[in-house]
Amino acid sequence: MTTLQNRQFRLAARPIGLPKPGDWEFTTQAASTPGDGEVLVKVLYLSLDPAMRGWMNEGKSYIPPVGIGEVMRAGGIGEVIASNDPAFAVGDIVNGTPGVQEYAVVSGKTLTRVDPKLAPLPAYLGVLGMPGMTAYFGLLDVGKPGQGETVVVSGAAGAVGGLVGQIAKLKGCRVVGIAGGADKCKYAVDELGFDACVDYKSEDVKKALRGHCPKGIDIYFDNVGGDILDICLTQLARHARVLICGAISQYNNTTAVKGPSNYMSLLVNRARMEGFVVFDYAPRYGEAVRDLAQWLAQGKVTAREDIVSGIETFPDTLLKLFKGENFGKLVLKVA
Amino acid sequence: MTTLQNRQFRLAARPIGLPKPGDWEFTTQAASTPGDGEVLVKVLYLSLDPAMRGWMNEGKSYIPPVGIGEVMRAGGIGEVIASNDPAFAVGDIVNGTPGVQEYAVVSGKTLTRVDPKLAPLPAYLGVLGMPGMTAYFGLLDVGKPGQGETVVVSGAAGAVGGLVGQIAKLKGCRVVGIAGGADKCKYAVDELGFDACVDYKSEDVKKALRGHCPKGIDIYFDNVGGDILDICLTQLARHARVLICGAISQYNNTTAVKGPSNYMSLLVNRARMEGFVVFDYAPRYGEAVRDLAQWLAQGKVTAREDIVSGIETFPDTLLKLFKGENFGKLVLKVA
Repeated sequence: MTTLQNRQFRLAARPIGLPKPGDWEFTTQAASTPGDGEVLVKVLYLSLDPAMRGWMNEGKSYIPPVGIGEVMRAGGIGEVIASNDPAFAVGDIVNGTPGVQEYAVVSGKTLTRVDPKLAPLPAYLGVLGMPGMTAYFGLLDVGKPGQGETVVVSGAAGAVGGLVGQIAKLKGCRVVGIAGGADKCKYAVDELGFDACVDYKSEDVKKALRGHCPKGIDIYFDNVGGDILDICLTQLARHARVLICGAISQYNNTTAVKGPSNYMSLLVNRARMEGFVVFDYAPRYGEAVRDLAQWLAQGKVTAREDIVSGIETFPDTLLKLFKGENFGKLVLKVA
Repeated sequence: MTTLQNRQFRLAARPIGLPKPGDWEFTTQAASTPGDGEVLVKVLYLSLDPAMRGWMNEGKSYIPPVGIGEVMRAGGIGEVIASNDPAFAVGDIVNGTPGVQEYAVVSGKTLTRVDPKLAPLPAYLGVLGMPGMTAYFGLLDVGKPGQGETVVVSGAAGAVGGLVGQIAKLKGCRVVGIAGGADKCKYAVDELGFDACVDYKSEDVKKALRGHCPKGIDIYFDNVGGDILDICLTQLARHARVLICGAISQYNNTTAVKGPSNYMSLLVNRARMEGFVVFDYAPRYGEAVRDLAQWLAQGKVTAREDIVSGIETFPDTLLKLFKGENFGKLVLKVA
């Protein structure tokens, strides 16, 4: 087989605040040959996620940080072009964590095969991928929504938030989104079927939530942290659940994270704030994929991807997440 | 019956920061006559609790605020001296919420009879009273400690904290207290049987907790909030429970409450932070009293009261709580 040139983004420095061009190194080297149990994957689509910002920081977290000089970690979809794992054949389309590069040698154990006939490939990074799993298990397993309860979700036009709201609607909840800008709010209400959506850029969020949630918030699914979390805490219903999925407003802080100063509302309302990590549900991803694929096929759930082409755009494309510029799941088309 | 002169502390103004003398009005008036279903109680002991500071603030909480001009709310033990409720006879000793006054007319429905032979009366305000109920249900029902788990409790020499630690020991946990001063720490370890106690006034709390909790904190029972809460969040074990019982460090703030800036540790550790209000467990107080009275009688649990005499000392005595001067349950002896 001819030598394949593999372009890669490596972490050059730990960012302070928003990642700068100098925090990356764009390298080219020959693609490696798969060892025993490994496959060589040609990367087709990469998933760009807010969580990636956390992986760039030093320190203990739910997953080790990406090392300086290492290829940046990223989930993605690719095509098997060489295999030393009997479970995979050349031509298989697989979902895994290839990293930000054009070709990846990965252990077959870290891959799952996907069916390109069941859904378009980018959907496997969104509604049928990590965001879908996050929305599904976070809302249903951690939040346990009851019929008629009020669910508020921030990042409502994002990959996770949009699904949280739609799943909550399927479970009989009243759903109120929070998003930045009239377009995103219109999308959440008109296309995703939310009951209401608050534009935090132009509305008084507290007042708007009070109007849209007359019985208080039973579940707040938090993707953003910061002031929005603090405002939602003031509107909790008794026995509310605040699900800590992410805190995108805080990921690029150069000062201390803003803690939720209204946390004593948890006491007043006998409420709980709970964190979760989607990887814990890996043994049960099948359940979620089955439900979500069915809902998609039945038109009960809709999802949008925001696809940007070209691996060389990676540093800029990633920033769209933190500037709130993406609309639906942000995907980088590599090949 | 002769006219009884009743001295009372009324809330004169909503305090800003620590309650000042001018926030109180010390009035004298004739004791009222009990109406239908009511009894007249001679107050013997009043319970002074950190939660009282919250009751003095305006705004929605788990209980309405004390109104300006009203007798300050307080739990207490008294003797029935006149009764229009067939459930109570003159001479009965009762537990209720008489307020900061010498005589109180209260509905019989709000009272429970106590047995002065079973335990000294002040114990009914501590280990067998609200602090006991709070420790018991908060730790056991909300925290659900497992054998061998590590429980950390702040306010370790206080009425609630001291019991939390002792109950956790009875359930087979490793118990680490946090308290202010060497005397309190010595008391927690030597008299209450804690495995260790960190003196936050002289020790590096984070370092000390890391040493005493090598496997991390499974349950943190928080009575104080502020920096101690934030430090404990950095030491959580996976699936930890952070129980929000109170936040005495923040009750007299004149600036915004300090939110826990390390709350994302809840995500990393798949942990939860949960608030509770002891009054919700009122229908089950009997269970707790039965267990606690038995443990007391068997010497498995010990409790100390810090008793100050004289209703006229109330404003100053209350401040002992916020200065960390009390040792065990703070009780005001009224008659």
